[in-house]
Amino acid sequence: MTPSKQTEKQTFSGTKPLLRVLQGERLARPPFWLMRQAGRYLPEYRELRSKARDFLDLCFRPDMAAEVTLQPLRRFGMDAAILFSDILVIPYALGQKVEFQEGRGPVLEPISSVDDLAVFDEEKFHQKLSPVYETVNRVRESLDEKTALIGFAGSPWTVATYMVEGGTSRDFAKIKTWAYGDPDGFEKLINLLVDSTTQYLSAQIDHGAEVIQLFDSWAGVLSEPFFRRFVLAPNREIIRRLRQKTTAVPIIAFPRGAGTLYPEFARECGAQAIGLDTTVPTLWAAEEIQKICPVQGNLDPIALVAGGDMMRRELDEILQNLSNGPHIFNLGHGIVPQTPIEHVEELVRILREG
Amino acid sequence: MTPSKQTEKQTFSGTKPLLRVLQGERLARPPFWLMRQAGRYLPEYRELRSKARDFLDLCFRPDMAAEVTLQPLRRFGMDAAILFSDILVIPYALGQKVEFQEGRGPVLEPISSVDDLAVFDEEKFHQKLSPVYETVNRVRESLDEKTALIGFAGSPWTVATYMVEGGTSRDFAKIKTWAYGDPDGFEKLINLLVDSTTQYLSAQIDHGAEVIQLFDSWAGVLSEPFFRRFVLAPNREIIRRLRQKTTAVPIIAFPRGAGTLYPEFARECGAQAIGLDTTVPTLWAAEEIQKICPVQGNLDPIALVAGGDMMRRELDEILQNLSNGPHIFNLGHGIVPQTPIEHVEELVRILREG
Repeated sequence: MTPSKQTEKQTFSGTKPLLRVLQGERLARPPFWLMRQAGRYLPEYRELRSKARDFLDLCFRPDMAAEVTLQPLRRFGMDAAILFSDILVIPYALGQKVEFQEGRGPVLEPISSVDDLAVFDEEKFHQKLSPVYETVNRVRESLDEKTALIGFAGSPWTVATYMVEGGTSRDFAKIKTWAYGDPDGFEKLINLLVDSTTQYLSAQIDHGAEVIQLFDSWAGVLSEPFFRRFVLAPNREIIRRLRQKTTAVPIIAFPRGAGTLYPEFARECGAQAIGLDTTVPTLWAAEEIQKICPVQGNLDPIALVAGGDMMRRELDEILQNLSNGPHIFNLGHGIVPQTPIEHVEELVRILREG
Repeated sequence: MTPSKQTEKQTFSGTKPLLRVLQGERLARPPFWLMRQAGRYLPEYRELRSKARDFLDLCFRPDMAAEVTLQPLRRFGMDAAILFSDILVIPYALGQKVEFQEGRGPVLEPISSVDDLAVFDEEKFHQKLSPVYETVNRVRESLDEKTALIGFAGSPWTVATYMVEGGTSRDFAKIKTWAYGDPDGFEKLINLLVDSTTQYLSAQIDHGAEVIQLFDSWAGVLSEPFFRRFVLAPNREIIRRLRQKTTAVPIIAFPRGAGTLYPEFARECGAQAIGLDTTVPTLWAAEEIQKICPVQGNLDPIALVAGGDMMRRELDEILQNLSNGPHIFNLGHGIVPQTPIEHVEELVRILREG
């Protein structure tokens, strides 16, 4: 006998709230997590961070990285843990020199051709990343039955910006000059990132990640034709390959800054949910994106720094405007170091109790 | 006898192409100018710049500023000159300390309250800015009957970001914390900027500016309610006051990064034309913005650095997609220093000859 619809529903309602929303269910109180929820705004993070040699060391020590991943859950009880790592572990594992300098951000030895990297060696790649997989394992074992584990990676375009610019950038002149001037050559780098990122995420899934988020933080700096080719297409290809592997792990894509191209991205990328940045009007998103798939977002992290009435009003508006469909509450960008912990507590209180 | 429609049309077609498009006319070959067309990519600019004490000195010496304004026209014959100046002359004239440091960009002594500024003194303000007005005068006298003179200012939100952050910013944490935490207090700064900017632009018009462009370069970093209050409303108020003074000077508003809020901005701000940033899809803009008013834009300045086939293809697509309505060709952001002059020549050749 096949289970009746009713039975299915009952079983289903027993699963984690985040996963339920990702399967298209609307919950009266949306599940939530916060981008960069494990980080410098937490004193317990700063303490552990001071014991690591540097930021990459912290990412690559499973005991510490697992602990850091779990810290915010103990305080705030989010509906998901997100693996503590960095999007630049991919260039690192591809053999590029990556350093995190205090107060300056990441510094990479910039490349201007895919030939500046060694030939892709699958074994070496996974070997370098194996501590991350071990962290995924450990965290998954520590989570209760309500809390989901999110694995993640940067999307190819975004990771490529750091690889080519050598760090953060204001105008993305180097990478755009390459991408516009020699799109076929540049696409080789994108393809390498599609391949390696898929492998990386696939291993995270094998080690226990229940959801994957793809961060395309710099999706919003390209003109439309190049957005299609270097943002939409690589995200779609990674998602397609991961879905071929398993349909049990939903994928959240976050094309930050996609603006007017958000709906096209949502329709075509194949993700199970779309992350909204802070600038996306939520009533508009309810109509144009939430009817395609569940949405995640989008309180301005600086509203969380400000706190008070203004934060409550912004929060209420987001919850209200997205209440007619599946919604995961989150910020519209990563939490910042100067965020007062009491403001996060207040946010959580409202999300849990209304 | 009142002139017939035909006569009117004939007189009308005698005016400058830029002004014709701003009055709603579609021209087979769109008029063009380039944001930051007077600048470091030109050797003659670099030579003159080296003779000034610093960047502000260059802005405040009418002989040099007028010469710099005219330099690109001699090479490329744009349809408009844009006053050579900087959006930060407003905080400077309001008494804030503003410096331009070589290779570091602008540095301001940041303010955290409108009380950090002296009480607004109209006479002093105009006195400090009088060299700019003199530059406008001189340039206007030098232009032929085909070329329009554009005056400009930064919009209040964008200028405020520099005043509060003390320079350029990545996350706009200071200004957003203020704006979100104490919107009424912050609005006093915005109102001061609305008043002073209107006066500044009004004087530019009195001295010969035929078009005004309002640059809201950081319009794209706010959530929707704050976009309405601190981007849309101040632009609308400045435009309303200038239009009360005269309807003979059209205004181009440029809310860079407005994304999905572009159409609302275009409908409500009262400008005669809207500047499109590089990320705005032009087919979408033809439908959603060009039916409201003329549009300006939007080649990626880095496509101009790359040059070649890719630039030609991007350019053709923009021209084609916006060909059914009034269009002023421009970049979607300022020209960058490393732009090869031959690429600008090629761009101009295509724009003029097809």
